[in-house]
Amino acid sequence: MKTLVSEGLKLEDGRLLVLDQQMLPDKEIWLECASPKQMASFIKALKVRGAPLIGVAAALSLAKFAEGGANKNEQIEAASLLRSARPTAVNLMWAIDRLSPSLGDVPKLVSLAEEIFDEDVRLCNNIANNGARLVNGGEGILTHCNAGGLATAGVGTAVGIIIRAFEQGKNIHVYVDETRPLLQGGRLTAWELKKHAVPHTLICDNMAAVLMRKGKIQRIFVGADRIAANGDFANKIGTYGVAVLANHHNIPFYPAAPYSTVDFSCPSGEHIPIEERAAEEVRGVSGFFGAVRWAPEGCKTYNPAFDITPVDLVKALVLDSGVFTQDQLKNGCLSRIKS
Amino acid sequence: MKTLVSEGLKLEDGRLLVLDQQMLPDKEIWLECASPKQMASFIKALKVRGAPLIGVAAALSLAKFAEGGANKNEQIEAASLLRSARPTAVNLMWAIDRLSPSLGDVPKLVSLAEEIFDEDVRLCNNIANNGARLVNGGEGILTHCNAGGLATAGVGTAVGIIIRAFEQGKNIHVYVDETRPLLQGGRLTAWELKKHAVPHTLICDNMAAVLMRKGKIQRIFVGADRIAANGDFANKIGTYGVAVLANHHNIPFYPAAPYSTVDFSCPSGEHIPIEERAAEEVRGVSGFFGAVRWAPEGCKTYNPAFDITPVDLVKALVLDSGVFTQDQLKNGCLSRIKS
Repeated sequence: MKTLVSEGLKLEDGRLLVLDQQMLPDKEIWLECASPKQMASFIKALKVRGAPLIGVAAALSLAKFAEGGANKNEQIEAASLLRSARPTAVNLMWAIDRLSPSLGDVPKLVSLAEEIFDEDVRLCNNIANNGARLVNGGEGILTHCNAGGLATAGVGTAVGIIIRAFEQGKNIHVYVDETRPLLQGGRLTAWELKKHAVPHTLICDNMAAVLMRKGKIQRIFVGADRIAANGDFANKIGTYGVAVLANHHNIPFYPAAPYSTVDFSCPSGEHIPIEERAAEEVRGVSGFFGAVRWAPEGCKTYNPAFDITPVDLVKALVLDSGVFTQDQLKNGCLSRIKS
Repeated sequence: MKTLVSEGLKLEDGRLLVLDQQMLPDKEIWLECASPKQMASFIKALKVRGAPLIGVAAALSLAKFAEGGANKNEQIEAASLLRSARPTAVNLMWAIDRLSPSLGDVPKLVSLAEEIFDEDVRLCNNIANNGARLVNGGEGILTHCNAGGLATAGVGTAVGIIIRAFEQGKNIHVYVDETRPLLQGGRLTAWELKKHAVPHTLICDNMAAVLMRKGKIQRIFVGADRIAANGDFANKIGTYGVAVLANHHNIPFYPAAPYSTVDFSCPSGEHIPIEERAAEEVRGVSGFFGAVRWAPEGCKTYNPAFDITPVDLVKALVLDSGVFTQDQLKNGCLSRIKS
């Protein structure tokens, strides 16, 4: 397979490597992924994360598995394992479904997987351009979780927009929700914005409201893990609350994603399955610094990884193919778009 | 001085002891407080916290200092140091102001400080009764931060209401915001509810919105650090966001506090000073488990300890003297109440 390099994934010298995102920002550890089974476990453990990236990573691991000599039955089994590694982000199912008709056909699988990678780079680039047009100089921009280069094969979605606007010379300031429980904002988005020298301030999730009230935030961009046909969308837990707060303060709120995040078969948000994760994640935190717990041992928790934001709270959706307003979304524009 | 015992503070055998709340829930360490200077440092470091409790603790440390032989000038200096230990919670200023005219008069200081303690116990009890009347069986109740026995000399304010309702046999379920950055919900409220066997679920702050949307929360009680004359109030950072979310979902939202939290001289929320704290608190967390950092080193942060919730988002204020609706608050009822 050809050499492919993104911020969080590399295919080089015949090795598929992923940057262990649980170790960031202090430790940049690249893990070799030897099999689809291992990729599925990396995805479950969030070592590889971000809706577009997990689709790309799953496709590459499956193609590489075929190239390495796995027979068709083994490929089918691996595809099924990868497809169910996480339930919410539809890009994973989308990528596997794109490869599935070609299982057993090694050259075809390789070219499809490479195409998925290259396409994601182009889609991100288009999203960045489409979204950056919405941003004015002097604006404060809030983002939640990490929808940057680490979450995609390209420049990212929400964070891609922010970086593009900054590169265009717009003097923006980014407020980064730390995004409990897994701190993708505090660890990953802060790390990416620092790398790109974009001015930013890290906040705890519960501080966004007062910044909105103080007039510090003019625009909000977030990623998406699955977009229903009516424009409702799933994204990292906490996104829905940000959208409600944005609505109360009349701040435009935009999800941003490639078309591969749209689940054309899903009529509305209530049909999107939401992954629930382990109580330990809420009782404490773990990462490069080890694992710590601060809540009482055995304390009952609720830990949905995602929530659903209804289209009514969306100003517009930034896709690779354009920016679609709430009215357009409600009028079913998504069913007519397949990039 | 007489023996006084609350959940987080003890005066016994001539020693003033505070439970180090930074070490909870895993370690129950009682620290002896030898001087007002040390009490001020305990208050700054949040070893002693909670608006009512820091007033009580400051008063006791000052009276004990006088009893131990400090002269009037030393008492004046100590009063000033205690008064400025933290800027937002008005109970601290209220308690010191109540003692100030009697500085130099040891028996009077001792009796005033004891009175402040005993009064807080009674006020909490009244708040609990007043608030518990609002609660129906079967309700889900959200609380933010810790406004329990650890935050007062008595049964608490918001958590006191919850415990009282539970003791009355109402089958409630409590959702506890962990309350970043200092995790008073995850560490302290969860610990208190466990002690009182009240069913509860710990959540990250950004999960409250989806619980509201799902109809899991019927009522919200929070404490207060300072209430302005018009009913606006300061409380732990994140409270304002909870109030906005409550408003969006038509869930009644109640601050609860003793009259000592009302700043009759403060016309509205915008006049309440807000303490900003160290960046380390947002970059990571520290406690009995040590200190960990997960954000990039040196990352810029915003870390207000409190925010202001406008009276427009308040269903009613639960005071020791009764429950006052938003309309009553807007009509200036607070200026006519001095318990």
